[in-house]
Amino acid sequence: MNNTIIKNIAEIEHQPYELIRKGIETGSIAIMYRGNMGIAIGTGLRTKINVNLGTSSGHCVPEEEIQKAKIAELYGADTITDLSTAGDIPEIRQSIRDVTSLPMTTVPLYQAVAENTLDYLTDDLIIENLKEQIKEDISSMVLHCPSRQTIKAMKQSSRIMGVVSKGGAMMSSFMLKNNQENPYITHFDEILTILKSKDVVLSLGNTMRTGCIHDNRDSAQVLEINENILLAQQAHEKGVQVIIEGAGGHIRADKIAENIRYYKDKTDFPLFVAGPLPADVGMGYDHITGAIGATFAAGAGADYLCYITRAEHKSLPTPDEVKEGLIAFRIAAHIGDSMKYGLSEKDKHIAEKRAQMNFEEQAAFALDPEEAGRGIPMDTNCSMCGSFCALKMIQTYCRRTDE
Amino acid sequence: MNNTIIKNIAEIEHQPYELIRKGIETGSIAIMYRGNMGIAIGTGLRTKINVNLGTSSGHCVPEEEIQKAKIAELYGADTITDLSTAGDIPEIRQSIRDVTSLPMTTVPLYQAVAENTLDYLTDDLIIENLKEQIKEDISSMVLHCPSRQTIKAMKQSSRIMGVVSKGGAMMSSFMLKNNQENPYITHFDEILTILKSKDVVLSLGNTMRTGCIHDNRDSAQVLEINENILLAQQAHEKGVQVIIEGAGGHIRADKIAENIRYYKDKTDFPLFVAGPLPADVGMGYDHITGAIGATFAAGAGADYLCYITRAEHKSLPTPDEVKEGLIAFRIAAHIGDSMKYGLSEKDKHIAEKRAQMNFEEQAAFALDPEEAGRGIPMDTNCSMCGSFCALKMIQTYCRRTDE
Repeated sequence: MNNTIIKNIAEIEHQPYELIRKGIETGSIAIMYRGNMGIAIGTGLRTKINVNLGTSSGHCVPEEEIQKAKIAELYGADTITDLSTAGDIPEIRQSIRDVTSLPMTTVPLYQAVAENTLDYLTDDLIIENLKEQIKEDISSMVLHCPSRQTIKAMKQSSRIMGVVSKGGAMMSSFMLKNNQENPYITHFDEILTILKSKDVVLSLGNTMRTGCIHDNRDSAQVLEINENILLAQQAHEKGVQVIIEGAGGHIRADKIAENIRYYKDKTDFPLFVAGPLPADVGMGYDHITGAIGATFAAGAGADYLCYITRAEHKSLPTPDEVKEGLIAFRIAAHIGDSMKYGLSEKDKHIAEKRAQMNFEEQAAFALDPEEAGRGIPMDTNCSMCGSFCALKMIQTYCRRTDE
Repeated sequence: MNNTIIKNIAEIEHQPYELIRKGIETGSIAIMYRGNMGIAIGTGLRTKINVNLGTSSGHCVPEEEIQKAKIAELYGADTITDLSTAGDIPEIRQSIRDVTSLPMTTVPLYQAVAENTLDYLTDDLIIENLKEQIKEDISSMVLHCPSRQTIKAMKQSSRIMGVVSKGGAMMSSFMLKNNQENPYITHFDEILTILKSKDVVLSLGNTMRTGCIHDNRDSAQVLEINENILLAQQAHEKGVQVIIEGAGGHIRADKIAENIRYYKDKTDFPLFVAGPLPADVGMGYDHITGAIGATFAAGAGADYLCYITRAEHKSLPTPDEVKEGLIAFRIAAHIGDSMKYGLSEKDKHIAEKRAQMNFEEQAAFALDPEEAGRGIPMDTNCSMCGSFCALKMIQTYCRRTDE
């Protein structure tokens, strides 16, 4: 552990040093390090947000991904994950890293598959790629660890959507194609040694998340949760920090809190949730649907949210869509935190400035001061009510009658 | 009751005729009539959405309000409320009505205050204005009925934000200025006769809703709820349909469901909720904050939601912002309904088309097909994953290994 970084984190989180240290010791808190900084994720801490970015063969414009990384940092993301699968992947990753100080996560399998295709991929190539990537300044790696048994259960499931996790689908396809066990499982000890050498957080991927709200938690998902918890325990015992991704995807609203509790009742490892989306009909507005689901999830105990943009289900997002999705999820995390820990003074401050009709200071304390300040009145008259401002009327007549 | 309209409503709501008829009889359902159509609001029915529009002295461009009315209807609002307080109000209202078939609500006091100012307003002018407006094709009227006792309680409250309801502030200011009881209360019998003459729904306004999440339900709010329920009962006994506005405004997330239940435990009259907003820091994105709060509210039993736009707290919304706010609230209502009544087949349909990588049909079944269809792939390759589509990989390799 790096004591200076932990002290900084304790200060930022308004928590005692000992709580952070103990959390790391027991595994309920993981720290993603980047240089002299660290982002802490887990029990008792502010809900964190991850922004995905990266090229694909369908849209490979590295400059846009660099732009997205800048936007992610500017508008308050806690971490970024590079999901590039096209172009010169290590170079793209480096140029993204160059423009941001945020911890970066990768999914090593993406590069291994992109460079070798599933046809030529082998266990050795997968492990080699992981060893190469660990040399970069990476804070966390996502490994999808479904076992053969879990994939068998998925094949027998009646789910409408099969596997909607890209990394999970890559690994499952590789295993199905070669009729073999997951190399991350068979090489797990070696992988832990590699991760430990750089204190890189192991993020256990969520292959079996459901892809529509009509699909329910099935035996494939339950198997994966249990397997991931066992792998996380092994990692923790070896001194590797770990996060588990779960309880995400598409989940009906009335089951989100239950899904979070199902996980949290089993283990204290930090829970990373993608979305979840509590509706499928919001296509084109999945940042809003996702923010609604993420609020339920964070309020019920999710520690770390993966944002969703309005481009979800059809394309890579534009930089503007990244910003919009990130802000939607910051609102979700903020509201979730109010459910976990009580109200923030920031809301009170805005309310006090609002009662004084001080638009500039309201905007300054908003999550996105730029958008909050767009079109604010230049005087004290908001054009919604014009001369009939409720606050002003009441302040006038309450005062008069008090005299 | 108009049997043909009730039959149509039963069909649209997929509910038995008898349930609708009985709901109207007991007061748990109210119907806003417009011509040969009616929108039913209440227990057992799909959650409805209202769009506010109208001029103010700060921004009086009737063409924009007409445009907003068209957008409201096009994108699925159930009702509109004209809140104009500037320009030739009856003429603006008529031109808005001319372009839409949606039921229209008004707040008669707005016009009375706008035309007379608070300085020259009298009980007689308030009642006269109401009598004039009832001659128009209006479906529902909002009356703010705080008693002197309730206003006294508000003045003694420690709330940060006093009264944030415009109509409520107008009425409270009028009462405070003249040191008098609420004319809607003193003339209540006469008003019921007026409303009944045209089967106009009485919507009891929510003067005492809280204006920031640090303000809690106080005695002013409790008094108003109880008074509104008593007035609603009187109205119902006289054969006037009634809706009560409550449990809205700014409410901390963990109290929204409790606030809805607090109301629903007391009465079955349809509950109209403004927002609620579970954060104050989302300024500039209050359509998202509001959609999150509205989902909690609808899921807990709210029957009717008043949408919020990103312009809230600073200006009248643009037509584009009206659309965006409306869609956000349609998502909220849809998710809320999934919590109240279970899942919709629409989500399943989209999931099935998604599993088939049929982007056009997915978009066609989305809440906003236009935005859902924007940027969809022309082939079956979504640019998010390009050649590494999770669904395709799994479908390929699951099939191959099955052979």
